[in-house]
Amino acid sequence: MAVPPPARPHRLLPLSLGLFQGALLLFFALFVTYNKPSAQAEDANLMVNQLYGIFPLFQDIQVMLVVGLGLLLAFLPRYGLSVLAHNFLLLNFSTQWALVLQGLLHHLHHGQVHLDLHNLLTAEFTAVTVLISVGAVLGRTSPCQLLVMAACEVPIYLASEWAIVTRLGVLDVGGTITIHVFSCYFGLSVSKALFGAAQWPVHPKETPTPRSDLLSLVGMLILWVFWPSFVAILCQPGDAQRRAILNTLLAMSASAVTAVVASSLLERDGKLSPGHLQNGSLAGGVAIGVVADMAVPPVAALALGSLSAVACVLGFRFLTPLLARKLTLHDQCGIHNLHGLPGILGAAASAVAILVAPEDTSGAGRQALCQAAGLAVAIGGSLLTGLLAGAVLRLPCLARPPERLCFDDALYFKIQDQVTSSEPGGTAEEGALALKE
Amino acid sequence: MAVPPPARPHRLLPLSLGLFQGALLLFFALFVTYNKPSAQAEDANLMVNQLYGIFPLFQDIQVMLVVGLGLLLAFLPRYGLSVLAHNFLLLNFSTQWALVLQGLLHHLHHGQVHLDLHNLLTAEFTAVTVLISVGAVLGRTSPCQLLVMAACEVPIYLASEWAIVTRLGVLDVGGTITIHVFSCYFGLSVSKALFGAAQWPVHPKETPTPRSDLLSLVGMLILWVFWPSFVAILCQPGDAQRRAILNTLLAMSASAVTAVVASSLLERDGKLSPGHLQNGSLAGGVAIGVVADMAVPPVAALALGSLSAVACVLGFRFLTPLLARKLTLHDQCGIHNLHGLPGILGAAASAVAILVAPEDTSGAGRQALCQAAGLAVAIGGSLLTGLLAGAVLRLPCLARPPERLCFDDALYFKIQDQVTSSEPGGTAEEGALALKE
Amino acid sequence: MAVPPPARPHRLLPLSLGLFQGALLLFFALFVTYNKPSAQAEDANLMVNQLYGIFPLFQDIQVMLVVGLGLLLAFLPRYGLSVLAHNFLLLNFSTQWALVLQGLLHHLHHGQVHLDLHNLLTAEFTAVTVLISVGAVLGRTSPCQLLVMAACEVPIYLASEWAIVTRLGVLDVGGTITIHVFSCYFGLSVSKALFGAAQWPVHPKETPTPRSDLLSLVGMLILWVFWPSFVAILCQPGDAQRRAILNTLLAMSASAVTAVVASSLLERDGKLSPGHLQNGSLAGGVAIGVVADMAVPPVAALALGSLSAVACVLGFRFLTPLLARKLTLHDQCGIHNLHGLPGILGAAASAVAILVAPEDTSGAGRQALCQAAGLAVAIGGSLLTGLLAGAVLRLPCLARPPERLCFDDALYFKIQDQVTSSEPGGTAEEGALALKE
Repeated sequence: MAVPPPARPHRLLPLSLGLFQGALLLFFALFVTYNKPSAQAEDANLMVNQLYGIFPLFQDIQVMLVVGLGLLLAFLPRYGLSVLAHNFLLLNFSTQWALVLQGLLHHLHHGQVHLDLHNLLTAEFTAVTVLISVGAVLGRTSPCQLLVMAACEVPIYLASEWAIVTRLGVLDVGGTITIHVFSCYFGLSVSKALFGAAQWPVHPKETPTPRSDLLSLVGMLILWVFWPSFVAILCQPGDAQRRAILNTLLAMSASAVTAVVASSLLERDGKLSPGHLQNGSLAGGVAIGVVADMAVPPVAALALGSLSAVACVLGFRFLTPLLARKLTLHDQCGIHNLHGLPGILGAAASAVAILVAPEDTSGAGRQALCQAAGLAVAIGGSLLTGLLAGAVLRLPCLARPPERLCFDDALYFKIQDQVTSSEPGGTAEEGALALKE
Repeated sequence: MAVPPPARPHRLLPLSLGLFQGALLLFFALFVTYNKPSAQAEDANLMVNQLYGIFPLFQDIQVMLVVGLGLLLAFLPRYGLSVLAHNFLLLNFSTQWALVLQGLLHHLHHGQVHLDLHNLLTAEFTAVTVLISVGAVLGRTSPCQLLVMAACEVPIYLASEWAIVTRLGVLDVGGTITIHVFSCYFGLSVSKALFGAAQWPVHPKETPTPRSDLLSLVGMLILWVFWPSFVAILCQPGDAQRRAILNTLLAMSASAVTAVVASSLLERDGKLSPGHLQNGSLAGGVAIGVVADMAVPPVAALALGSLSAVACVLGFRFLTPLLARKLTLHDQCGIHNLHGLPGILGAAASAVAILVAPEDTSGAGRQALCQAAGLAVAIGGSLLTGLLAGAVLRLPCLARPPERLCFDDALYFKIQDQVTSSEPGGTAEEGALALKE
Repeated sequence: MAVPPPARPHRLLPLSLGLFQGALLLFFALFVTYNKPSAQAEDANLMVNQLYGIFPLFQDIQVMLVVGLGLLLAFLPRYGLSVLAHNFLLLNFSTQWALVLQGLLHHLHHGQVHLDLHNLLTAEFTAVTVLISVGAVLGRTSPCQLLVMAACEVPIYLASEWAIVTRLGVLDVGGTITIHVFSCYFGLSVSKALFGAAQWPVHPKETPTPRSDLLSLVGMLILWVFWPSFVAILCQPGDAQRRAILNTLLAMSASAVTAVVASSLLERDGKLSPGHLQNGSLAGGVAIGVVADMAVPPVAALALGSLSAVACVLGFRFLTPLLARKLTLHDQCGIHNLHGLPGILGAAASAVAILVAPEDTSGAGRQALCQAAGLAVAIGGSLLTGLLAGAVLRLPCLARPPERLCFDDALYFKIQDQVTSSEPGGTAEEGALALKE
């Protein structure tokens, strides 16, 4: 009845992470410097302005990823510490790993790597894809598996982003296709390859409580507030950036109201499902990314936000159970509903927006095709590579936690004195669970 | 004993909200565009600066309203999800509704409506009045009632603001009179008209727990930190804005310390009341809004902050119980203490500040009278219209939740598995409640 | 068995705080004004830019101190309200007290005091030292004792900062030596003088629960995100500030990953200790402050971040228990591990960075010596004065709470209805505690 100490896989994590930190130090020591200070006063002034322009938005994005996304995923009532900590660790590891890979590529072509806030930002965007993908397998994977997943996904994302943006010339300022669609299908594909046809009854620790739903709701609100910064940070300063901010604000607002409408209409007694609200309110932000800086009228942003929220809520209500039943596809956080469906909607909207734009009609057809091709590359590439990554995650050395201990902080955290803590219900439940085994 | 499913009123909410979203889309499709991009480089530069100037403050205000205010109101231990969700929904609905009304008015006079961040901001300020007013009736109203209340309050606020600022020329950069005083008396008036002379014993779910008080305290701290952005965002950039920020910082600091002093002196054993701290610390921010950009010395900001905190704590200790006893006036969140009393103090301070200002003595007497007239319009107008709005809220189709089910998330949220969740105390309490009926 | 009402010391707090507020008002009335508005358009423009440059960073720091630090310290499960409220009160009191002292000094030399955001910022930095020091004695002290501690520490800090920065010319843009090292040893010294050789068994309310650890983790994440603003706000705008931000970002990232590595390697079964993660992830930010704006390569920032995290985790695992055993030194929050050890590491790194810098070799040796001397002054001065302050805190009128009632919000907050609240475990525990007495 005693839990056997899974000592070996746990040693694997710190040792491999420690090794990676050493390699990171070596790489930075050899190849990375800061930009030289510019001697001209004019340039210095420009740099100050750039800094003040990009740094607040950068901080907003950090808050989104570290606090907002962490809390959003903390809807699992006994897994909050793990979710926040793994999210934080994966963000840092993936950013560092992306810096190394980007740096290596740059070094091979241009020699010394000059680090600035812009490098860090693109590396952080890479990390975002990892954080999204992980949502598909959350709770039933070990930290080791998550790290290996991140290690696989970062180079694949960089290749995919290069193919989509640099080669195909897809316009995607908010990362709808490159980040959201890619990471969604990568995560689903990993989930399928990792869990195969396994079917589990609902885990007793999988059901959100009002308290964990509240934390998740706060996380959603933080993401909702700062989403415009995420979409607008890489826009051209000036008119395009202004438009991107306004479009995102409108889409998010329409999403929020529509998510309530859709959830109330679908649920029994007109009650709201917390999960619908937590995800549907953000769906507009996912979809708007790819059209945010285009010359679309405000009504298009509103409509896209509403449509995405409807798609997201419908997905939770019908598609996720269907996929689970037909394909035994596990999608723990419903990333397909928040990132997949709205991402595809956004991509379609971008093609339409390009076709109906009043100006530049010459290349419009070609560009619209590009957007579609980019979407296809993102979906196809991620599905294929995700299967491979998922197969790697099945390696015996990366032991998956036993089902009984899933969704539980106690497996990864030294939690003192749980039995005598003030949670009698919890411990009773644990006792019952232990007896069943 | 089984709860009868209140199906019909719940269908009312999504259907009317959905209808409104449709109307919003239509309105935007017909009348709203973005500003044309400016061709001149100079202007573009100016626009970038404007964007960087106003956008961070705008985000601060969004955090205040969505996260800070939501958490502040989450002191009801079993009503946190509802408070956060309703606050979020009302913010978005009211902002959209204000955009439509403002747009319609503008359209009638000038044709096409050009949307920018400034429009969105003034619409959001309209929403703030709704979020404040709702505090008076929180927990004993249905979402439908809250939406109808918002639908009524938005046009009334716009008219009141036009009368006070545009017609009377009242100076009120932080919205002390136009937002705080107006919304407070509107909310109280609605509460009176809606609840009449009803008297209830203390509801078992109405009493904060240490945990819900902690959430509320975090909400207060978030509001406290970002309050200067709220006051300063509409100031003239430069000296006035700088002064507004400093005055607000000083007033908030004095409020925080004085709230502790006042609460400790009033409570038995010198203990602090969490409610006093949660509200008193913010009172200075309410009061300072109307004088923040005036040429007052720093000591005036400190004094006003201290006075407001004292008024707020005294209000909670003596005035609220008195009003409840004498007028059977329900003020669930004590909005009269946080928004009413400090708002009146601030309005009085603004008249004094104008009278004693060293410069511009010619029009000072007139302007001071204007401030008083503005206060009178805000109070009188809101009391009168609030009674009407409250009468509308009594319409039978907007069924109020039965007292037994008030203050409970389970009425509006699909919460899974509450009986077997890890809250034995809670379910026991619920059982006891059910038995009583 | 009934708790004797400790009425008198509780009256002391509001009365003395109230008196202080009065003195503050008097001082401001007599001596403090705002800067005169500048007539020149050029200057106004400059001022706007300054405002937009410094104000967002100032807000970031406010969020860190009020929300982030408050939550970080809220790992004590039944003491969250007290921690947040005392942190908030001490921040405001210490800032005001520092404004008075700075103002008095300035007044004696230059007459009228002109208040601006910069004054407020340096006063707030003074308050930070108080908030850090308090961590050593958290939970076993009364609010009165904390206020007296703040009243003592503020002038001592100002003197120490003057000696270190102005007299010795130590370079310390992020306050590593002046703030972190000073406040750490001051706090430890107060703890020793206050608690003497007292030894207590583990208090039943001292052990974090998963829920309180989660709050603390969120606090850490907020601090982690905004730390670059704290380090960079006083840098020269331009290249130095840009470098400070990048160095801090790198150091924090390395800290986060290394803290996980170190904690997993040290704990049984490779589990993570929440405390290690909460503190170790921030250690890099403490250490980097003193070298952040120097011309160090990126690898140095990474290495310093990693080293600090290792030192911090090792400190928690071995040094704190050792100090508790050998010196009966109580360090409730482990401030020695988060602020002391990384601070010393940072100071050493700054000396090395100055010695190996390619330019300015003439004064490098002298400046490196200065850094060492600054560290010595910070440690020596704080240890000495802390002992005196701790002795003051033993005054009988500042009654320390009885051990049985430590770590409990109920001692300082009017908490309604705890017995019938939904925490049966808690009340059982309290009952057991009461029976033991």
